[in-house]
Amino acid sequence: MRYAVIMAGGTGTRFWPKSRVAKPKQFLNLIGEKTMLQTTVERISELIPEERILIITNSGYSDLVKEQLPNLPEENIIGEPVGRNTAPVVAAAAAIINSRDPDGSMAVLPSDHYIRDRKTFLSVLDAAFEKAESGHHLVTIGIRPYRPETGYGYIQQKTEDSGEVGGHTVSEVKTFAEKPDLETAIRFLEAGDFLWNSGMFVWSTRVILKEFKKHLPQMYEQAVTLAGTLKSDGQDAINLFYNNVESVSIDYGIMEKADTVYVIPAEFGWNDVGSWMAIYELEDKDKNGNVLSASTTSVADSQNCYVYSESDKLVALVGLQGVGVIETGDALLVCRMDRAQDVKKIVEDLRNSSKDSFR
Amino acid sequence: MRYAVIMAGGTGTRFWPKSRVAKPKQFLNLIGEKTMLQTTVERISELIPEERILIITNSGYSDLVKEQLPNLPEENIIGEPVGRNTAPVVAAAAAIINSRDPDGSMAVLPSDHYIRDRKTFLSVLDAAFEKAESGHHLVTIGIRPYRPETGYGYIQQKTEDSGEVGGHTVSEVKTFAEKPDLETAIRFLEAGDFLWNSGMFVWSTRVILKEFKKHLPQMYEQAVTLAGTLKSDGQDAINLFYNNVESVSIDYGIMEKADTVYVIPAEFGWNDVGSWMAIYELEDKDKNGNVLSASTTSVADSQNCYVYSESDKLVALVGLQGVGVIETGDALLVCRMDRAQDVKKIVEDLRNSSKDSFR
Repeated sequence: MRYAVIMAGGTGTRFWPKSRVAKPKQFLNLIGEKTMLQTTVERISELIPEERILIITNSGYSDLVKEQLPNLPEENIIGEPVGRNTAPVVAAAAAIINSRDPDGSMAVLPSDHYIRDRKTFLSVLDAAFEKAESGHHLVTIGIRPYRPETGYGYIQQKTEDSGEVGGHTVSEVKTFAEKPDLETAIRFLEAGDFLWNSGMFVWSTRVILKEFKKHLPQMYEQAVTLAGTLKSDGQDAINLFYNNVESVSIDYGIMEKADTVYVIPAEFGWNDVGSWMAIYELEDKDKNGNVLSASTTSVADSQNCYVYSESDKLVALVGLQGVGVIETGDALLVCRMDRAQDVKKIVEDLRNSSKDSFR
Repeated sequence: MRYAVIMAGGTGTRFWPKSRVAKPKQFLNLIGEKTMLQTTVERISELIPEERILIITNSGYSDLVKEQLPNLPEENIIGEPVGRNTAPVVAAAAAIINSRDPDGSMAVLPSDHYIRDRKTFLSVLDAAFEKAESGHHLVTIGIRPYRPETGYGYIQQKTEDSGEVGGHTVSEVKTFAEKPDLETAIRFLEAGDFLWNSGMFVWSTRVILKEFKKHLPQMYEQAVTLAGTLKSDGQDAINLFYNNVESVSIDYGIMEKADTVYVIPAEFGWNDVGSWMAIYELEDKDKNGNVLSASTTSVADSQNCYVYSESDKLVALVGLQGVGVIETGDALLVCRMDRAQDVKKIVEDLRNSSKDSFR
């Protein structure tokens, strides 16, 4: 059977002041009516029902997950007492699923990305499962880049021996590349065989556990122990695992070391929604390029601005270009849109000051 | 005796959203603790006590004046039912003062200007009274310009025959010039004999009434009638006057037509506080050139910004240059500071829309 593991542990700060330490991005309805987590679950519902979806989150957010996904079985929520990067998440999830269904395969998916073209995404995901199930492969989904982005990792394909599965190209991975500088990113884009690493992976639990046993043997043992004691010990078993496991990413710990990894290059309107700038880009704009999500806005000679307000206040803009105005109950952010990623600096400053309550 | 007539009828819109139609600039504490009207009265208190100060305001603001100046005799507040520009204000005030004190002289002063150097101002005002009382002259106070400002009227002096009074230069006025275009303003500045028209005038009531009789004879008659019936008819007499009087400025109606007008060139840190930009310029700045008048502000890489907030909200700025953020109970203005004079456009838009309640 097919399972999904949704990683919802992020404590993202780049959507401050709407996102807070107490309620990060994946639990917010940044785009549309539903939260990003709800949308992620709904998106795959045709392929994988909620009974076979595991949500891995910070234990402080477990109640938020229950609230937002009331139909998800409670035992499918794994609350991490501490964050230990992505490899332990995958090891634990694979061991748990494998103990329930030894022939199970699983997709690892982020909880907070935007995907415009759901149909194509599901078709790609289905193909990835097919590839993973057919030949005991590790499969990852790569996004065809259209700008020299320096904020993502890249995957280089061996384009010379591409195959096909479910109507989609599938290639062996040549290398995984870390976030590049701009010059390198331009070279990657021009080379044509580099893809953005979307953080979405598909494999059978048996295959990925074998890889853990080989490359991270201690983590493998810890995960198997967790799976064996979870039913009897519950959160204690989870705590024991997380408090002792090594902190390492799945990319560094497994993907870069595995002998053969396949990648499916895809285009389905993917956006990692990394900052307010991404929201601005995803929303419909008026003739002046403005996105005005406030009950009342008055604009004089302003272009390419973004306004989001939770109050009934009149928001007025005069003479601005590319400025974002985000107002919540207790905070107001005014930000040059092309500096939106620096909002996290503000949150760091708050942590280190007497204004910690605003985080 | 010396009197002061303070013009407090403005319905300025350039300090929106702090100023409102219901509470314009002169009634706000834009700089310091006291309102601009209170500061104006206090500034001249050594020279002229409140018993001899007349406040001319829109009748809708009479209660605000009483509230802000509780020691001012109530009969010294003249509430205009409609605005008729400045000549009727001066005519009415001169006739009223003259009926109380035939030898009285009066200063006409705006209620909403900033003056940094009170001592010098008082010395200039005293000199202006002295000049006005000595030879039956019309006297005006001119400000030495230091930039080619296109927003003010100018006064050209006859520098060749300057005199001196109370330690200050006094010259005859050659011409009054309307607000110039930039090229002309630069020429004025370079010429050296042009001054900014501050809108401050001093004369004996007898002399100015003679000028009204000559240049605006109907207005003169109406003002004398008002002064004669004010005690018995009260507001009715005022209403009769304003509803029938011609609308004309004192500059156009009298100053430009009078045979001889004197001007005292002065420097006392004058600012007409025409927009939020002026407030920014008057306030102390931090090392990044920011003025942060909010209970809590967090700033990342922003320079020359102005923040004013009436809430306890945390205001955060990221990557901004020269942007003003003004937050009141029901409105939020974000404005490029060098476009601050265009805030009035927003207020005009509000008047013509369903958002009139925000004006």
